[in-house]
Amino acid sequence: MKKKMTMQDIADMSGVTKSTVSRYFNGGYVKDETREKIKSIIEKYNYEPNAFAQSLKAKQSRIIGVIAPCLDSTVTSRTMMAIDDYLRKENYMSLVINTDHDEKLELKYMESLWRMNVDGIILIATQVSEAHCALVKKMDLPVVFVGQKFKDGISILYDDYHAGIKVGELAAEKGHRDIVYIGVMESDQAVGVERKNGILDGLKHKGVTKIELLHADFSFDVAYEKVKKLLMKRIPDMIIAATDRLAFGAYKAIQEKGLRIPEDISLVGFGGYEISSLLTPKLTTIRYDSDTAGYIAAETMSKLLKEEPVPKVQIVGYELLQGDSIKEM
Amino acid sequence: MKKKMTMQDIADMSGVTKSTVSRYFNGGYVKDETREKIKSIIEKYNYEPNAFAQSLKAKQSRIIGVIAPCLDSTVTSRTMMAIDDYLRKENYMSLVINTDHDEKLELKYMESLWRMNVDGIILIATQVSEAHCALVKKMDLPVVFVGQKFKDGISILYDDYHAGIKVGELAAEKGHRDIVYIGVMESDQAVGVERKNGILDGLKHKGVTKIELLHADFSFDVAYEKVKKLLMKRIPDMIIAATDRLAFGAYKAIQEKGLRIPEDISLVGFGGYEISSLLTPKLTTIRYDSDTAGYIAAETMSKLLKEEPVPKVQIVGYELLQGDSIKEM
Repeated sequence: MKKKMTMQDIADMSGVTKSTVSRYFNGGYVKDETREKIKSIIEKYNYEPNAFAQSLKAKQSRIIGVIAPCLDSTVTSRTMMAIDDYLRKENYMSLVINTDHDEKLELKYMESLWRMNVDGIILIATQVSEAHCALVKKMDLPVVFVGQKFKDGISILYDDYHAGIKVGELAAEKGHRDIVYIGVMESDQAVGVERKNGILDGLKHKGVTKIELLHADFSFDVAYEKVKKLLMKRIPDMIIAATDRLAFGAYKAIQEKGLRIPEDISLVGFGGYEISSLLTPKLTTIRYDSDTAGYIAAETMSKLLKEEPVPKVQIVGYELLQGDSIKEM
Repeated sequence: MKKKMTMQDIADMSGVTKSTVSRYFNGGYVKDETREKIKSIIEKYNYEPNAFAQSLKAKQSRIIGVIAPCLDSTVTSRTMMAIDDYLRKENYMSLVINTDHDEKLELKYMESLWRMNVDGIILIATQVSEAHCALVKKMDLPVVFVGQKFKDGISILYDDYHAGIKVGELAAEKGHRDIVYIGVMESDQAVGVERKNGILDGLKHKGVTKIELLHADFSFDVAYEKVKKLLMKRIPDMIIAATDRLAFGAYKAIQEKGLRIPEDISLVGFGGYEISSLLTPKLTTIRYDSDTAGYIAAETMSKLLKEEPVPKVQIVGYELLQGDSIKEM
């Protein structure tokens, strides 16, 4: 399928800004010289202003595409429900597409949604690559990134670094010295890099520099297997898990080994799932405010569509949910 | 927006079957007399066979719409991931829409997806009304219902009634006599009615007829509040929860009251979430095979699109996961 021409393309070829092209089509003020330039580009590429204007009008599909890395993570689900709820009240329909943590699918599905004439895209991103930037630039529709920083556009972020610091400092303050961190791939800037760096820096602030790093994905099963293998070799003071789901995998491996949390090994997670407080012992965890993140993402999208001003970066809060899974050494 | 005319409409007006109309457009064999009839209808309504054929062709969007009652239930998420996984391998993209358990939105979104030219719709339904039947009849595209029986079409079902019987019989066999069931709304035929009736019949088989019914929705919070209120009045032998999530709400209320499971009160759920086995005590629960349900739903859709034969009803299995949350009275 041939890519459709965007306002940005016309702007680039005319040497003007996109908003000038937009004014041209919407009958706003444009200098005569500029008007001629835009007109000649449009004629050269066989665009009829009317058809284009029509397509702009038809573009108000009242549909927002939501691209998610999975459909079965508690935090992502909560974020999507909040997005959906806000948008429905504003009379938008949200269409969710799952990428299964595949960056290429993120790009492909953004293009698909664009061709389907959605009004905007909210991307619960696993990473932000150059390809993401190029694609967003090409598409003339609003895109909001959730969970990963998009330097050329609008992002809603969790404060992964500082949450990590809090947990790292806590671990050290409680006297833990032999610490294992079970994390996710570094292509995920927020969870894989920022969160981990926060933890390492938090530990370092308190003089702890020895830490063993285990690499998992986002699944329960892989975390379970990794921790099981670890415990066959040795029992560290503490396991810090990058997500509650990984912590659940650790629970299972620890319980199967006949060890007690926190007496034999301390455990902490990130996520603050409802269920984490029902475990025995209660999991100590960071709760990200994903309801707020979803709400803000949808609100920001709604404002962008109304051409109201929005901040470039919005950071939502977190809190430490004190459980009983960390011992005092 | 004016509704588009469907092959079914043409079939109805011509007094022939839809497949005859399909053959007409695809150049298959149609009796001369019938051919004339179809032709006159098409001309009367200003349809050009070519345009129609074109729209048929354009219809192959390789997009399947998936309509779900929520995005944050473990069973639904698991089903959607399995659907998505199968369809992606078959080079389809699935678009998920959340209805928030609202029947009117189910209907509205089916229409929306139809107008977006999806190739088919998989509906993880909360209920099946006359309006559903009428709409599916009107749309000339395959629809697969998951979780609720659709008498005029294709359904993938969980065996809610027999799973209910199993739990009801188990409860009675373990000697429980004073039982509280916390369930969901009866508009949900599968969970609200079939599952409940199975439980009641299972208990009845074993001579237990006294049961108090509490009504919740699908949320953790409402279940927690209902059980909290119950426990302020009295402590039954056992609580049977319609879903694991409701059981989690019960756990919280029971723990807060300082009661022990199962010593002071037995508890059982339906769902078989990963996490249910990490609770202390482990929750005894029915695990529905939602991976298989999702797989079968997607496979059935794929077959329908290839015009291969499919069964009208397919029932996926369940198993009792034995935990430690039911005492022997």
